[in-house]
Amino acid sequence: MAVYTEVTDDELTPLIADYGLGELLSYKGIAEGVENSNFLVHTSKGTYILTLYERRVDPADLPFFLGLLQHLSERGISCPLPVRNRAGEMLTKIAGRTSALMTFLEGVWPRRPRAVHCAAVGRALAELHLAGKDFPLERKNALDLAGWHTLFERFSGRADEIAPGLGNLIAYELAHLDRAWPKGLPGGIVHADLFPDNVFFIGDTLSGLIDFYFACNDAWAYDLAICLNAWCFEPDCSFNATKGRTLLSAYQALRPLTAAEVAAFTTLARGAALRFLVTRAHDWLHTDAGALVKPHDPNAYVRRLRFHQEVESPSEYGLERPQ
Amino acid sequence: MAVYTEVTDDELTPLIADYGLGELLSYKGIAEGVENSNFLVHTSKGTYILTLYERRVDPADLPFFLGLLQHLSERGISCPLPVRNRAGEMLTKIAGRTSALMTFLEGVWPRRPRAVHCAAVGRALAELHLAGKDFPLERKNALDLAGWHTLFERFSGRADEIAPGLGNLIAYELAHLDRAWPKGLPGGIVHADLFPDNVFFIGDTLSGLIDFYFACNDAWAYDLAICLNAWCFEPDCSFNATKGRTLLSAYQALRPLTAAEVAAFTTLARGAALRFLVTRAHDWLHTDAGALVKPHDPNAYVRRLRFHQEVESPSEYGLERPQ
Repeated sequence: MAVYTEVTDDELTPLIADYGLGELLSYKGIAEGVENSNFLVHTSKGTYILTLYERRVDPADLPFFLGLLQHLSERGISCPLPVRNRAGEMLTKIAGRTSALMTFLEGVWPRRPRAVHCAAVGRALAELHLAGKDFPLERKNALDLAGWHTLFERFSGRADEIAPGLGNLIAYELAHLDRAWPKGLPGGIVHADLFPDNVFFIGDTLSGLIDFYFACNDAWAYDLAICLNAWCFEPDCSFNATKGRTLLSAYQALRPLTAAEVAAFTTLARGAALRFLVTRAHDWLHTDAGALVKPHDPNAYVRRLRFHQEVESPSEYGLERPQ
Repeated sequence: MAVYTEVTDDELTPLIADYGLGELLSYKGIAEGVENSNFLVHTSKGTYILTLYERRVDPADLPFFLGLLQHLSERGISCPLPVRNRAGEMLTKIAGRTSALMTFLEGVWPRRPRAVHCAAVGRALAELHLAGKDFPLERKNALDLAGWHTLFERFSGRADEIAPGLGNLIAYELAHLDRAWPKGLPGGIVHADLFPDNVFFIGDTLSGLIDFYFACNDAWAYDLAICLNAWCFEPDCSFNATKGRTLLSAYQALRPLTAAEVAAFTTLARGAALRFLVTRAHDWLHTDAGALVKPHDPNAYVRRLRFHQEVESPSEYGLERPQ
């Protein structure tokens, strides 16, 4: 949580005018967003989010991200919609940063998700996958199996500083996934980071999805496996089978998994756990004690990975084994 | 700028209901407030600020601060108005912190104040002083001349780490103020921290005053001298006489200074500069490199103090010498 770059009123006032959004009423830097600086902006026309892209976002990816948000919005997905300025552009410059202004989504992310939230997320993820089908741009998943190898190489010598045996655990799992990772599963646009803090609710009703800055092209069932990891484990890292079954059923009501996806699901769940384990372990070892953003504890994903390693049948997640 | 304490949706939802503010739509931690954690809250009834008081605010002072905001609001001052919950209380508990919910003031603080802003602030400060006249509670100024001595004693041995000769400068000035500080000037409620970031504008129109957590009883002209220091110096620390004259005239249009206040004004301006010099110097020496809040540079107030030390007549500020 942080604001990395400050914006002055002298810069923002003409920018709001250029977007045709009336008079600037207020703006507050908000303590969210690991990657970017975000401001909640009130104008006489409504409420918006101004995002300044900091160095962790590749500017070359922005047309993909913003185009995707527009594409999904047009297909009924509730997500931030980039506003175009008078020149028709979705990207502008402010305070020396490439930036975008988007509609603000009301909603609160659930700190303690219940099954009702898991059902809504499963449905929303399927809607997202289907709505993304005809999106014309593509983006490779930089955090794929090859990416996990690359990242692990950067900290393998220090992994055991986090937990004894962690280096061996990751090396073992990478070797397993090199053999087992499925190819040719149905896929397309995936969110790739649909954690509770990226899903808003008003009461128990899902009001929107945010933070598409990991979105890319990949297997849809892998995205579902990420959600399973993110939503269906309790704070003590135990797997909640009711939440798992609820999430997967809600997803399949809109897009049933193929037999190949069901067969691969345990592998996908292991891969999803490893993906967050390696990024968190990397960030854990590379974050200063005084950093603005506290890194997530990698151990929550060690526990998830060990759970998945013990799974013998997709039925343990609430999926039927393919016939 | 920081959020020190996180609030969960499970805690906030019933709190909003208890305040009768309808349904919780969203809340965002905002990157403002050195002393407290602040959240911008949207409900179906409107926009509010939730403040969690952290350790730097003495809970015993809260009835004074919140009572003052209500008192001033009732007298037409645009400032945050504490909302009362169903039990009629302005203070509640959330996330283990004493907290209050207040109306949200639209507006933007001017990063580069112009004379038009100085005129509006002068007028607003006089309105504030007059509106506070019949406020029944009192609060001693903890950062008075005796308080500056106490604070300086804590870092006098290290003052020269900030700038060579700083320890001598402060000691000299404290000795001067011990002799020269005026007594018996007209006074009452003062804001005591009316810097640009605490004054909101929409366009060039002042829309409200915030952050009353230094408010106390003191000489009104001292509060005006604080504003002169805060608003009428350029980024290079040169005094802008046009802004000074504008601020003082706008104030005096509503509350003309007495001859005693004019005679004492240079001393008050020196004291106001020293007050921010000693707090900034103290914080500068006591803030970790990794702290969430970066300390203000004390040198801006060294420069101001040296300017005031050279002033020979209040006419240099745009005040007429008393007859």
